Amino acid sequence: MTHVPSGAPVTVIGLGPMGRALAGAFLEAGHPTTVWNRSPGKAAALVEQGAVLAPTVAEAIAASPLVVVCVIDYAAVRTVLGPQTTALEGRTLVNLTADSPANARETAAWAARHGFGYLDGAIMTPTVTIGGPDAVVLYSGPESVHRAHRATLAALGGTGTYLGADPGRAAAHDVALLDILWTAMSGIAHAFALAEAENIKAKDLEPFAQGIVGLLPRSLTDHAERTDAGNHVSDVFTLASAAAGIEHVVDATEHHGIDAGILKAARATARRAIEAGYGDDAFSRMTEVLGRPAA
Amino acid sequence: MTHVPSGAPVTVIGLGPMGRALAGAFLEAGHPTTVWNRSPGKAAALVEQGAVLAPTVAEAIAASPLVVVCVIDYAAVRTVLGPQTTALEGRTLVNLTADSPANARETAAWAARHGFGYLDGAIMTPTVTIGGPDAVVLYSGPESVHRAHRATLAALGGTGTYLGADPGRAAAHDVALLDILWTAMSGIAHAFALAEAENIKAKDLEPFAQGIVGLLPRSLTDHAERTDAGNHVSDVFTLASAAAGIEHVVDATEHHGIDAGILKAARATARRAIEAGYGDDAFSRMTEVLGRPAA
Repeated sequence: MTHVPSGAPVTVIGLGPMGRALAGAFLEAGHPTTVWNRSPGKAAALVEQGAVLAPTVAEAIAASPLVVVCVIDYAAVRTVLGPQTTALEGRTLVNLTADSPANARETAAWAARHGFGYLDGAIMTPTVTIGGPDAVVLYSGPESVHRAHRATLAALGGTGTYLGADPGRAAAHDVALLDILWTAMSGIAHAFALAEAENIKAKDLEPFAQGIVGLLPRSLTDHAERTDAGNHVSDVFTLASAAAGIEHVVDATEHHGIDAGILKAARATARRAIEAGYGDDAFSRMTEVLGRPAA
Repeated sequence: MTHVPSGAPVTVIGLGPMGRALAGAFLEAGHPTTVWNRSPGKAAALVEQGAVLAPTVAEAIAASPLVVVCVIDYAAVRTVLGPQTTALEGRTLVNLTADSPANARETAAWAARHGFGYLDGAIMTPTVTIGGPDAVVLYSGPESVHRAHRATLAALGGTGTYLGADPGRAAAHDVALLDILWTAMSGIAHAFALAEAENIKAKDLEPFAQGIVGLLPRSLTDHAERTDAGNHVSDVFTLASAAAGIEHVVDATEHHGIDAGILKAARATARRAIEAGYGDDAFSRMTEVLGRPAA
């Protein structure tokens, strides 16, 4: 369905699955939307929805005061936009590409040197959420820049959370959250491999695995509270019991010749904590031990 | 409150937090309950509730046809019960101690050699759930043994799931589920350490972290279905994108001098999969690559 565009014009650079979702959400919300992608074929469906496909990056930038970029990483941002600093002058670049906080800060400094506004962002939910109430997009950078464009960015849906002036802050949240996501998903991938070696079908393990995943929200809250309070006193479950559990998993994994690297790395930290005298503490002590440089 | 014991007598050996919860549940359900622990002081509250503290392991075993043991690991089971094979003759031992499937099978063989019934079990929920509807306890071993005692074991609450005759099957589920639990918890511990290095308080990260944890149930189902079907074709999110995300987390972690061992191990598997040509597949391909011996 084609809407009559009435909002502020926006340009979206990068039309991978997420870039396409972003452009689609701007169109839906009535913003005249210009798009550009290295391989222009990706724009077909968006053009049908009313987007304008710019023939060059420079023309894409010229079309809107607000330019949103979402590509594979910041190296790709610099490859595409590095030669366009003159075109960007006086405009605002919102970088929704994922990368490390250090790269976000460096990219913000590059924008400042070239005299254009810069907001760094991190998208924490899958493409299907974009434009709807479940989207979570985090922003950081100059507050005035965020304020100037928040109404347009609201088209992306959900909570557009502003985290402060440090341009690395959104990326810092991003990496910490991806740390949880990819570590947990790696554990799930590994558990199904171990189950298969024990002739347990994934569908038979799954209901019990859902039970384990269901324990995480409460453990997460407990871990966070203990971390901020520096209180790791446990009356029931200890780091030593966790280490014993990890040991059984490592044994069972190696028994089947499966790589146990992930939990062996976790075990190394647990052992460091136990050797330091923290065996009777809660598992939350792991955070403090990890944050402490190894001797 | 002291109940008048009316059910079948039960002996509980090992009074750590879980052993105490088990004995408490049997008492609550009206089973005459005898307990023993290396340090007898742990029995005080249970004795007040009506338990009988046996002065020796042999007398504890002699008190009941059903003996439940829950200690730190199977080595401790053999230390405590190894000299008691004559006392155990003709009785049934239910071993709710956590350990690897190989050790469970070995312990079952030891029981068979000495002519006593043996059921292996794994407790998948915290102590507070025991005796209530949320308890999850898995059993494996001879079906006749399980059938003979399931009514008594029902006192432990929730779903007492019988998984089959292979005595290692409960432990196999246990290690696969602990794999998910401790890998995910290690990711949470690590994420808070990374957040702290970026001056993000745990309580400020926590709501977003809950959002990530909230994505896991659906990802788990998807991963299980793909694993059983051997179908890793992805139309949106790929292993290559996951690897890029992992890369950013590793970079940010090492930037702060924090150990990145867990995700570096995950990255090694992802790289192995990408080198094998699976970069465009879903993340579920990781399970298959992990299960395949490294060349």
